[in-house]
Amino acid sequence: MEKIRAGVLGATGNVGQRFIEMLSKHPWFELTSLAASDRSAGKRYGDAANWRLDSKIPQDAAGMTIVPVDTEKVNADIVFSALPADLAKTVEPEFAKAGFVVASNASAMRMMKDIPLVIPEVNPEHLGLIDVQQDERNWDGYIITNPNCTTIMMTVTLKPLMKFGIERIYISSMQAISGAGYDGVASMAILDNVIPYIEKEEEKVETETRKLLGEFDGGKIIDAPFEVSASCHRVMVIDGHTEAIWVEMSDDPFPEEVKEAFMSFDPGLSDLPTEPNPVIEVKEEKDRPQPRMDRNIGGGMTVSVGRIRPGIRYICMGHNTIRGAAGASVLNAELLKKMGKL
Amino acid sequence: MEKIRAGVLGATGNVGQRFIEMLSKHPWFELTSLAASDRSAGKRYGDAANWRLDSKIPQDAAGMTIVPVDTEKVNADIVFSALPADLAKTVEPEFAKAGFVVASNASAMRMMKDIPLVIPEVNPEHLGLIDVQQDERNWDGYIITNPNCTTIMMTVTLKPLMKFGIERIYISSMQAISGAGYDGVASMAILDNVIPYIEKEEEKVETETRKLLGEFDGGKIIDAPFEVSASCHRVMVIDGHTEAIWVEMSDDPFPEEVKEAFMSFDPGLSDLPTEPNPVIEVKEEKDRPQPRMDRNIGGGMTVSVGRIRPGIRYICMGHNTIRGAAGASVLNAELLKKMGKL
Amino acid sequence: MEKIRAGVLGATGNVGQRFIEMLSKHPWFELTSLAASDRSAGKRYGDAANWRLDSKIPQDAAGMTIVPVDTEKVNADIVFSALPADLAKTVEPEFAKAGFVVASNASAMRMMKDIPLVIPEVNPEHLGLIDVQQDERNWDGYIITNPNCTTIMMTVTLKPLMKFGIERIYISSMQAISGAGYDGVASMAILDNVIPYIEKEEEKVETETRKLLGEFDGGKIIDAPFEVSASCHRVMVIDGHTEAIWVEMSDDPFPEEVKEAFMSFDPGLSDLPTEPNPVIEVKEEKDRPQPRMDRNIGGGMTVSVGRIRPGIRYICMGHNTIRGAAGASVLNAELLKKMGKL
Amino acid sequence: MEKIRAGVLGATGNVGQRFIEMLSKHPWFELTSLAASDRSAGKRYGDAANWRLDSKIPQDAAGMTIVPVDTEKVNADIVFSALPADLAKTVEPEFAKAGFVVASNASAMRMMKDIPLVIPEVNPEHLGLIDVQQDERNWDGYIITNPNCTTIMMTVTLKPLMKFGIERIYISSMQAISGAGYDGVASMAILDNVIPYIEKEEEKVETETRKLLGEFDGGKIIDAPFEVSASCHRVMVIDGHTEAIWVEMSDDPFPEEVKEAFMSFDPGLSDLPTEPNPVIEVKEEKDRPQPRMDRNIGGGMTVSVGRIRPGIRYICMGHNTIRGAAGASVLNAELLKKMGKL
Repeated sequence: MEKIRAGVLGATGNVGQRFIEMLSKHPWFELTSLAASDRSAGKRYGDAANWRLDSKIPQDAAGMTIVPVDTEKVNADIVFSALPADLAKTVEPEFAKAGFVVASNASAMRMMKDIPLVIPEVNPEHLGLIDVQQDERNWDGYIITNPNCTTIMMTVTLKPLMKFGIERIYISSMQAISGAGYDGVASMAILDNVIPYIEKEEEKVETETRKLLGEFDGGKIIDAPFEVSASCHRVMVIDGHTEAIWVEMSDDPFPEEVKEAFMSFDPGLSDLPTEPNPVIEVKEEKDRPQPRMDRNIGGGMTVSVGRIRPGIRYICMGHNTIRGAAGASVLNAELLKKMGKL
Repeated sequence: MEKIRAGVLGATGNVGQRFIEMLSKHPWFELTSLAASDRSAGKRYGDAANWRLDSKIPQDAAGMTIVPVDTEKVNADIVFSALPADLAKTVEPEFAKAGFVVASNASAMRMMKDIPLVIPEVNPEHLGLIDVQQDERNWDGYIITNPNCTTIMMTVTLKPLMKFGIERIYISSMQAISGAGYDGVASMAILDNVIPYIEKEEEKVETETRKLLGEFDGGKIIDAPFEVSASCHRVMVIDGHTEAIWVEMSDDPFPEEVKEAFMSFDPGLSDLPTEPNPVIEVKEEKDRPQPRMDRNIGGGMTVSVGRIRPGIRYICMGHNTIRGAAGASVLNAELLKKMGKL
Repeated sequence: MEKIRAGVLGATGNVGQRFIEMLSKHPWFELTSLAASDRSAGKRYGDAANWRLDSKIPQDAAGMTIVPVDTEKVNADIVFSALPADLAKTVEPEFAKAGFVVASNASAMRMMKDIPLVIPEVNPEHLGLIDVQQDERNWDGYIITNPNCTTIMMTVTLKPLMKFGIERIYISSMQAISGAGYDGVASMAILDNVIPYIEKEEEKVETETRKLLGEFDGGKIIDAPFEVSASCHRVMVIDGHTEAIWVEMSDDPFPEEVKEAFMSFDPGLSDLPTEPNPVIEVKEEKDRPQPRMDRNIGGGMTVSVGRIRPGIRYICMGHNTIRGAAGASVLNAELLKKMGKL
Repeated sequence: MEKIRAGVLGATGNVGQRFIEMLSKHPWFELTSLAASDRSAGKRYGDAANWRLDSKIPQDAAGMTIVPVDTEKVNADIVFSALPADLAKTVEPEFAKAGFVVASNASAMRMMKDIPLVIPEVNPEHLGLIDVQQDERNWDGYIITNPNCTTIMMTVTLKPLMKFGIERIYISSMQAISGAGYDGVASMAILDNVIPYIEKEEEKVETETRKLLGEFDGGKIIDAPFEVSASCHRVMVIDGHTEAIWVEMSDDPFPEEVKEAFMSFDPGLSDLPTEPNPVIEVKEEKDRPQPRMDRNIGGGMTVSVGRIRPGIRYICMGHNTIRGAAGASVLNAELLKKMGKL
């Protein structure tokens, strides 16, 4: 099989580095363009990127020359976007218009009516919006997006609970510092501390969850009817968002039934290279999941849950820059390939 | 005024040290006995206690000789108990029977029907149980208790919301390591991590809150009728429990009304030396309260709240070993004195 | 006594806030001007400064209007400078020329031949350079500086060892994050990590120490003849620099003699309001000093030492933004006042 | 090739778990016995061990039944000892007497005259002591030991500097908490703190280094003649000891020469499965090595160095429970196999 040519927009940041880490060894994709701001463009990636992952910088990527974020300069079939929201808003449509498939981790377009917001295990049928989008916008390419990191962990676990009749959701998050970008949280701010506020995060969790679990009627998404109420907090953890979740359901299932729903959850995507097995891992220990111990399960793509108690209450945890960002986009791209849209 | 003679049971631990810090400079109490396990008894306090507060060890206390936890050896009118729960269960009744007033921070007796569980600003009328207790048990002294640290912060903020008709409460805590005692949380366990489990903590929060906000009918406490659902988590903070709270109320108040209720909350106890002013501090900043920044307000006795949002959702935070432990017992003792029960 | 009018240059940063904390309650000085960058000038200090100390913002200061860093706009007899080095280099001479006394914490001018670099307990006689400076530069005011934070802790402890004939010094530091300014160290950089490099720090420690312990011959400073070799490292501590020091001395004193020299060190400055007692505190515990436990001794002005071993090796620790920055400048200003130079 | 049967003594602790992680996938060894205290003996390893590494517990090991630390119950050709020092002192000789080869990470026997203390890249010739040991003690088996973690990192880097004529060494360490065992460092002790003391650590570094770099004259080790002076400190890092080292050498080499010596260091052991490539990695970045970024290079067996400055001063860093403990013993065992002693 010939590999699909893949570019990364915003290649030097935290999420950009994760994209490169995942794509440089990917069986289906081949890194062909690394695009970043004008400050970095023209430089060797290994020199311009301050590589901050604890894996080694992939040698192929290190030797590539960074190009500007410009449809004329990027050579790829699909571009993975780790751009900041404000920039994504103007740049991503340009790429889609120019014929690129854009798999975006940016928040800018997620809530637009004709933009699919997708988690493969949750709502692959929402990809039907691609046709709507291309029709309406007259684009050759298209944009698909993945949700905010906090939303992803929770929504993966909500999917198998849909059958019990979800009525209301409360979520309290304890989020890792990497979610804010490398310089996003000063050490003076977070050491021996909790910051009980993350800008726009609660809004994202509340709106994205309803869109993800909503129905695609052939033309648009009808949001899921239940209420989501979020309280988001930053704690001193490098990677891994931990979430305390309450789900009120009309069927009022026992914890054992919820556990069974998690354990038997199989979205049938094991043919995707990045799909973890299991998708949801149920921890039996009374004090798990924990971010430092469990964030790398399934290569960072598995969502771990535990402490399923009456309420229903449980804890869910996942790697925020892999499952919650770069890995989410990559998995979406794999789904596109599988469905013949790439 | 002659000072009241005060002893501390369990004087060498985290909470015991806080008791000594607070009582050594107290205008109403005079430290007369420091009691600890047989391992420490007979030694000079300054030698036996591994003083771990960042204040200096009070010189008077440092020079005292530790006595055994024995009613014959302790010289005091009131004893403040920082004993572990299992020991408290047998020892505290012995002291009460022997005529001591016991102000206990231990969990052992809190939920017993004839034992007052009191926060002065919340339910001073529950002290009426003292008579019931002495009648039933034929004790000369008596026991009063203060709640678990997590419960205290929340319940202080719930009191002024009672008028809106509380129907249900969800609380997700991010608790400091000092709550587990000096050796309670290994650094290997908590560094770069969250531990989403604290033994028995959720049960304490759920039952104690209903007792505290219940009604005293002259003979017993009738628990408050609403549901409390807790999820408790340990984070890497030295002191200060942060709590994300949802309160469903029948009156469905606006956030502005809730804020006003917090700000105007005045339990009329400003004549108690340890009573802070304000009892509840409303932080206006969008990212406060934060434990490292706000835990010492009011000498560690003020409970800080912020981020009051529709839901009603808000954040509350307080110093867990001062307002949530030693200071809670001391404030209870001051209330006893004011009411002529000491 | 009429108070001396004091201004702060760079009033909004970490060290600027410490200046305001110390000066707002100072018996000799009165805060009359808070100067900061144009971005903040014109605003109320309480609004412009993001107050980050855990003490409350002083109310008088909070109500003051920030002025630009301009000799025409600042109203003061003495200005305390917390400016960044590059700005200090041009601004501080302007203030001195305009007649202000400048007590600077900036590194820009420290090593200039006619600028006194002073720690009151170490080299008060170096203030003789003020006359040299005013003569040479034709200034009405003058500049005095205090050393880098890491240098200060060590040099205070070296002073009483001078009598043993210091020949060589090795120092390995473990420095707090506050030394880099509020946004200086990203949490992603330091969590679960050590950064074994601090820009220009080793050079500062090596050159400043020799100047401080050098001789003033009436016209210039003759650097102390011994070698200083530093290795500087950042660790995850909020405040308090810990330093492992080796001092080779020709007299080859026993640890007991070194301890005695530390304990009997009395520079005779107890009439200065900010002078701590003791200046050097010798910790007897085998595992002290520790930054979290000991940084606030003497209001953050005492330098703690411990573990004096053959070598001579010992540990020294002090509060880097109080003794090592703002408090150092304030103490220098008190010395100027005492010596009639203010 | 038939695999060598390997047992682990002290299989449930931090270092024991690392042994199992390394041996369960080892090409030359086969885990045949897991021995631990009576408390664990008889239980399934997966149940008794509280697995705390972030890798998954190896399934084969998880299913094994723990045996007592008893020569009659352990089935193996070689036993890897992660026993505490006091227990090691009596148990390891029993195993050696009973014919086992004992590769020990314990400190108990390291400094005994007839016990080889070995790092394969540093002093393989010291294995000659095995014959001396067996002769003197009349043992069928024998004991070999690896040094203390802090010593190992440094000594690996000193070996290629021996040719320059080492005269004196100063070392200041910043050590990870895992070195103290899982419960060794309370979070209350180390959060926002440095502990400038580790029991017996400085003595170990000083004596072990001289033995390792000493000469084997056919019958005994003649310690290296230079002085080693250590100051050891605990910092809030999970894994990875960082060390600031000064080496005075008679040849007074330039930093470039030292760097070249590090880079060209090749002990010729690339046929050992656990030998990393390179043994010493020279980091070019001005702020490296750093424990979180570099501890896993070479599977945790590479020692990283950087910041080679005149003095000669440099920083060295390595993984304390892999290169500094379990991996050190495993590498020693591989060397024994290569030399036909196993």
